[in-house]
Amino acid sequence: MAQGLKVLSAALPQDVKLETRSYDLGAQRWHATGDTLPDADLESLKDHDAILLGAIGDPSVPSGVLERGLLLKLRFAFDHYVNLRPSKLFPNTPTPLAGRPDIDFVVVREGTEGPYVGNGGSMRTGTPDEVATEVSLNTAHGVERVVRDAYERANARPRKKLTLVHKNNVLVHAGHLWKNIFDRVGQEYPEVTTDYLHVDAATIFFVTQPERFDVIVTDNLFGDILTDLAAAVTGGIGLAASGNINPSGAFPSMFEPVHGSAPDIAGTGKADPTATVLSVALLLSHLGYGDEAARIETAVASDLAERGTAAPRTTDEIGDALAARVSG
Amino acid sequence: MAQGLKVLSAALPQDVKLETRSYDLGAQRWHATGDTLPDADLESLKDHDAILLGAIGDPSVPSGVLERGLLLKLRFAFDHYVNLRPSKLFPNTPTPLAGRPDIDFVVVREGTEGPYVGNGGSMRTGTPDEVATEVSLNTAHGVERVVRDAYERANARPRKKLTLVHKNNVLVHAGHLWKNIFDRVGQEYPEVTTDYLHVDAATIFFVTQPERFDVIVTDNLFGDILTDLAAAVTGGIGLAASGNINPSGAFPSMFEPVHGSAPDIAGTGKADPTATVLSVALLLSHLGYGDEAARIETAVASDLAERGTAAPRTTDEIGDALAARVSG
Ligand SMILES: CC(C)[C@H](C(=O)O)[C@@H](O)C(=O)O
Ligand SMILES: CC(C)[C@H](C(=O)O)[C@@H](O)C(=O)O
Repeated sequence: MAQGLKVLSAALPQDVKLETRSYDLGAQRWHATGDTLPDADLESLKDHDAILLGAIGDPSVPSGVLERGLLLKLRFAFDHYVNLRPSKLFPNTPTPLAGRPDIDFVVVREGTEGPYVGNGGSMRTGTPDEVATEVSLNTAHGVERVVRDAYERANARPRKKLTLVHKNNVLVHAGHLWKNIFDRVGQEYPEVTTDYLHVDAATIFFVTQPERFDVIVTDNLFGDILTDLAAAVTGGIGLAASGNINPSGAFPSMFEPVHGSAPDIAGTGKADPTATVLSVALLLSHLGYGDEAARIETAVASDLAERGTAAPRTTDEIGDALAARVSG
Repeated sequence: MAQGLKVLSAALPQDVKLETRSYDLGAQRWHATGDTLPDADLESLKDHDAILLGAIGDPSVPSGVLERGLLLKLRFAFDHYVNLRPSKLFPNTPTPLAGRPDIDFVVVREGTEGPYVGNGGSMRTGTPDEVATEVSLNTAHGVERVVRDAYERANARPRKKLTLVHKNNVLVHAGHLWKNIFDRVGQEYPEVTTDYLHVDAATIFFVTQPERFDVIVTDNLFGDILTDLAAAVTGGIGLAASGNINPSGAFPSMFEPVHGSAPDIAGTGKADPTATVLSVALLLSHLGYGDEAARIETAVASDLAERGTAAPRTTDEIGDALAARVSG
C-alpha cells in the first residue's frame, strides 16, 4: 500500500493536491474489535473520489468473514458493477505457457449479481439430511449495464472484439438472459466483432490461444475463476490489478490487487507491490488521468523488462524504482 | 465410436462374448423426429452393463437441447454421481505448458447435484425487468457419497493425496456442507493427506504446479470447468476420457470422451479416436477388467510417444494401430 501511494504521488501533476485518509480494516481490526466494516466507516468512505484497497485476508480469520464482511460488502454497497481486470503479458516476465503468446485482454466481470448475492441457505444443517442451496440472481438491469460497459470498452480498443463467456447450455435461464442482452446491445455496436464461449471452453483457450481474446464480459463467478487463470498465464497473481467500478459515479470506485495479503511474508519487505501500483494506474485512468496512468504502465513494463538481470529487491526498492521512473 | 468398439473387442479376453447394441441418439435423430432420449430407449439402456457414448452436439441444434435432453438426462436418470476424469500428460504429447510438468491426477466431479439440477427460472422474461435464477442444490447424501468415493480412490493411489475444490468463502452454505463432510469422512482415511483450494486458486495451480495434484473432488460446475482446463494442459481435449459412474451398479455407468462431436470434420477421417479409446479403458476398468484397461492405456501411451515422427493418420488407422497394440 505504501508503494502504491508513493507512485500515486509521483504520477500526479504538481498542481493536483492529493488528500488521503487511511482506514484500518482487515484481520487486525477484526481480531481487536470484531468489526469488519462498520457503518461509520462505510459512510465516511462515500466522501472519497476513489478507494485503494490493500490485499485483505489472513488464515487466522475464518474463511468468508473478511471476504463477505469487508470486500464483498464494499462491492455491493457501492454498486461496483464493473469489475475490471486487465491481463497483459509484459516483456520478460515469466509465464507458465510455452512460446510466450501475445496476451493483452481485459475481463469485464459483473460485480453485483450472480452467485455472489449471498442468497442461499441450509436446512437440517449438520445432519445426514442436510440440503444446502446457493441461488444465482441475475437481472436484465444488472446484465445490460455491464454488457453495455463492455461493448464501450471493446469499441474503444483497436481490435474491437467482445467475447461473452457463460454456460448457457446448462444454466439456461441466466444464460439466455445474458445471451439475449448481449445480442441485442450488440446491434448498437456494429463495429464490434462478437463471440460466445462456454466457460469450460474458455479456460482451454486461455492456455492454448489467449491471443484470441480482446475484451471478455462474464458473470461474477465465471469472472472470478477466469481472472485468476488469466493472472496465472500473464506472469502471476503478483502482477494482476483490478478495478471495482461504479461508472455512474454515485459511489467511489475501488482499486485493488487481485492477489491476497500473503501473511507469510508480511513485513519482510519481500512482497512485490507491482499489482498495487498497476491498480493505482487503473484508479488514475478512472479519474480521468489517462496520461498519468499510461506513465505508470510504461514504468512497470520497463521495470519488469529489466528484472531478469537484476538482484532481487525489497518492496520499498521496487516502489522507489517505479516512482522514480514515473516522475522522471 | 467405431474405433472404440474395435479396441474394446481387441482388448477383451477370447472367452468373453461382447454383445453391443447401438442407439441412434443425437443431432440426426432430433432433426428427424424431435426426440432426444425417449422413455423406451432410456428403459432399454438400463439392461446394459455399460454405455459408451459418442460425442454429441451439433451447431444445427439449439444450445442446451441435446446437452440437457440427452447427456444430462442420462447422467441424472442413471444417478451417475461420480464423474471421473483422469488427467495425465503422456510422453511426447503437446502441452501448452513450458517445462512439461509431470501431470497425473484424477478429478472426481460430482455428477448429479449443484447448479446442474435444472432448478431455476425467469420472470418478466424478455423485458427490461427480467429476473433469472439458477439454484445450486446440494445434499449431505449427494456430497458424502462422492467424497467417500474420492477418498477411496486417493487411498488406492501411491501418493494418497486428496484436494477439495470449492468456493466456500463466497458460496458459504454449499461450501460448508462440502467442507464439513470432507473433513468428517477424512477421519476414516488417516493415510490420505488432504488439502482445500478455492476454485479460482485451483486454476492457477493447474498451470503453475499441476504436479501438486493427485485426486481432486469437487462440485459439478467447478468440475466441468477444471476438467476442460486439465484436458488443455495434458495434450488437449482430444485425449481426455471420462466415466459417468454409478458405483452402486443400480444403473449402467456411461463412458464418453470429454470433447464434442467436431461436426466440422465428421466423416472426413480426421477425428482422433484416442479419447474414446481411453474411455473404453475406463469402461473396462469399471467392469473389473483392470488388466485389459491397463493394456489399452499402455497402447495409447506408446502410440502417442511415436506420433512425433509419423505422418498424420486417419481415424481408422489410429484405431487399427491401437487395436493391434492391444491384441498383440
Ligand atoms: C476474496 C474473494 C471474495 C474474491 C472474489 O471471489 O471475488 C477474490 O477471489 C477476487 O477475485 O477478488
Ligand atoms: C455438454 C455439457 C452439458 C457437459 C457438461 O457441462 O457437463 C460437458 O461440458 C462435459 O463436461 O461433459
